Formats: sequence, C-alpha cells, structure tokens
Amino acid sequence: MKILHINASARPGRSGTDPRGSHTRRLTHRFVQRWQDARPGDTVTCRDVGQAPPSPVSGDWIAAASTPPERRDAAARARLAESDELVAELIAADVVVIGAPMYNFGVPAQLKAWIDNIVRVGLTFGFDRSRAGEPYWPMLAPGKRLVILAARGDYGYDPGGRLEAMNLVERGIAVPLGYLGLTEVHSVAIEYDEFADERLAASIRDAEARVDDLVARLLPA
Amino acid sequence: MKILHINASARPGRSGTDPRGSHTRRLTHRFVQRWQDARPGDTVTCRDVGQAPPSPVSGDWIAAASTPPERRDAAARARLAESDELVAELIAADVVVIGAPMYNFGVPAQLKAWIDNIVRVGLTFGFDRSRAGEPYWPMLAPGKRLVILAARGDYGYDPGGRLEAMNLVERGIAVPLGYLGLTEVHSVAIEYDEFADERLAASIRDAEARVDDLVARLLPA
Repeated sequence: MKILHINASARPGRSGTDPRGSHTRRLTHRFVQRWQDARPGDTVTCRDVGQAPPSPVSGDWIAAASTPPERRDAAARARLAESDELVAELIAADVVVIGAPMYNFGVPAQLKAWIDNIVRVGLTFGFDRSRAGEPYWPMLAPGKRLVILAARGDYGYDPGGRLEAMNLVERGIAVPLGYLGLTEVHSVAIEYDEFADERLAASIRDAEARVDDLVARLLPA
Repeated sequence: MKILHINASARPGRSGTDPRGSHTRRLTHRFVQRWQDARPGDTVTCRDVGQAPPSPVSGDWIAAASTPPERRDAAARARLAESDELVAELIAADVVVIGAPMYNFGVPAQLKAWIDNIVRVGLTFGFDRSRAGEPYWPMLAPGKRLVILAARGDYGYDPGGRLEAMNLVERGIAVPLGYLGLTEVHSVAIEYDEFADERLAASIRDAEARVDDLVARLLPA
C-alpha cells in the first residue's frame, strides 16, 4: 500500500520534540510511524507544502490545464509540471494523511495551493458540458482513505461544539477531495494550543490515542 | 472615504472586455467605477493578490508576528514588511471590495494568503490568555463594510441553493474578517460560468444590476 504524507504547517518541527514545533506534524508523524511499524513494506511519500508551498495557480496554469494534453505546447507542459507531480502522488496513494493546522479558521494558504493544484480536469475529475444530468464526475479510484489531522488555537470547533460553524478546515479539505472521489474521511484534532495549559496537554494525549486507534482500524486485516 | 479594491482571480483581464477575462474583476471594476462616478474625491487602493500573490506565512513570520514589536530585530521586521503593508491598507479602508472567484469550492490560495497576512495579533485582533471570558477581541474600527463579489463555475451555491453546503467562499472571507471586527458583509455572485450559455449571460446581467444597487445603498446619503 502507498501512503501520501502531507504536512502543511508553516512551523518546521514537531511539538513534543522541537521547541515551537507543530502539533499537526506531531500527529502525522505518529500516524505514519504506527502504520510503518505494522506494515514496514508499505511506501510513504512525504510532501511538505508547509515548508515548500506549491505555486498558486495562475492564468497561464488555468489555460494550460483546460487545453487537451495533446494540444499543449512546451510552455504549457512546463507550467503544469508541479501540478502533474502532485496529482501523480495523489493518484498513487491508498491513504492520504494531511496535517492541517487551522489558520484563521481555514486551511493554510499553502494547503489551499496544493488543493488548487490537484483538482485537474481530465485527471482527477471529469467535466462534459453536454452530458445529461450532472456534468462533473470524480476520477480518483474508489477505496482511497483521507485522514485529516488538525490543530486549533482555540477550542470547540468539533461537530456540536460552540465554534463548529466557524471551522472551515476539515470541510475545506473534504469538500474538494470528495468531489474528486475521495469520500472516506477520518479526522482527529488537537485544540487549546493558544492556552498552553493542562487542557492542551489533555487534548494532545487524547488526539494521540485517537490516532493510534485510527491506524489500528485502517490497517488491512 | 477610502476604498480597498482587492482582486484575487488568477486571470488578468475582465470578462466582457478581455478574452477569457475574470468575472470577479468585471464586478469589482464596476463597483469601484460606480462609486467613483458618485464620489470622485474618494481614494481607491488596488491590491491585486491574483497577479501578485502574497507570500504564505512561514515559521519565521509566525515567530516575528508573535514577538512584541519593540523586541523584533531587523530580520523579523523585514519578514513582516509585506504583511504590515497589507494590514495598513485594511486599517485605512472604509469599504473593502473583494473579487473572490470560487476555486475548488473555496477562495483561491492567493486570497487565503492575503487573509493569513492580515490577521495580526496586536494590529487587527487582540489576544490575552489571562483575560476573563473571551481572550480574543477585534481591533478593526467599527463601521467598515465588506463587499464580496464572487463567481462560480456551477450554480446553486447561494443560501438555500442545492450546493450551499459546499460553498466555502463567502464564509472563508467573512469568518476571519468578522473576527477582526469587519462584520457588515454584502455579497453578489455570478454563476454558470462553466456552462457558457444563456444562464451565464442572465447571471451576469443580474449580478451587475445588484452591484449597481449595492453601490447606491452603500453611498453616504
């Protein structure tokens, strides 16, 4: 099996290991380590959009992506090279693990740049204006799993929580990836980061236990 | 009065004027032109995050922004220079007009990069962990208005529409800016872009009429 391990935090290190490290890097690292402990032969591809943000899509990018591949010139192909690489990683993956810190209630700009690069007509979704009924269809193979490991400064963003309506992180990932066909979504989050008190410590312990449970549930029998 | 005119489309031109031009640029241009026709003495600041995307916030940026200003060294000040400029434009504005195309159900990465740069502790919001009750408070002056002019390839994303739940554009702007104190929000959108038929033409006509109405309502008496 193939794991695509995406980190999006602007902070380079992991909390608990590095000073001012990232909680989401801590959780994705744990997920991948637990998975590899159980299945050392599986492949893990790391994509760090936090440290190396993809280019936002440009007007030239849009023109190139909407040109049929056989009609793209060298400049158009070059413009899409980074996107092609990101798309290939997504298409190859069985499990996509995304570390997604909440930045101003949504995903970091660098993670949105990844999303804008992997939604590609003819590769990850289809569109035919003349098709009867729904003109769009998902092109990712069925059976993939999406794991969103989040972190939030404040608290109460989970379903039913006091700030649920303001949380645009999990939706911001699951909505576009669901459109591509990646509809099995699991998520775990750390809260209370900005309070740096016992509630944060408890939230980290709880999230780590939930990550361990999640790995155990997702491993092939 | 001061207008902050933000464009976020990756496409450089305006629809109706330039081939493959942007619908959101068309609407923001119309809004600003109508406003200036009525109030030629008002100042308009243009910020094109579509053509010149702000840098996503980095680990160094976060460290600099969370250091009190008097303790920032030259490198920290340099790291925040772009953000300082974007924040100053927002603080100065009475009306913030944002052209926000829907990219994969949310705002373009380049617009999220602008949001991540203007949410600044001590400048646009306050935070005090030891404060009784809510530790956060908005710092933008009251009375500003936010105008979101959107465009969508598909249709049914408005409140009550079939795809409302998948639309993360207006929320993706209004939630973080509301947190800063910019709570008066107006929005208009063009739909059906990908169908390029009479429904698109009708949607453009309707949106333009609504922009004209909006300007008339927002102009000082």
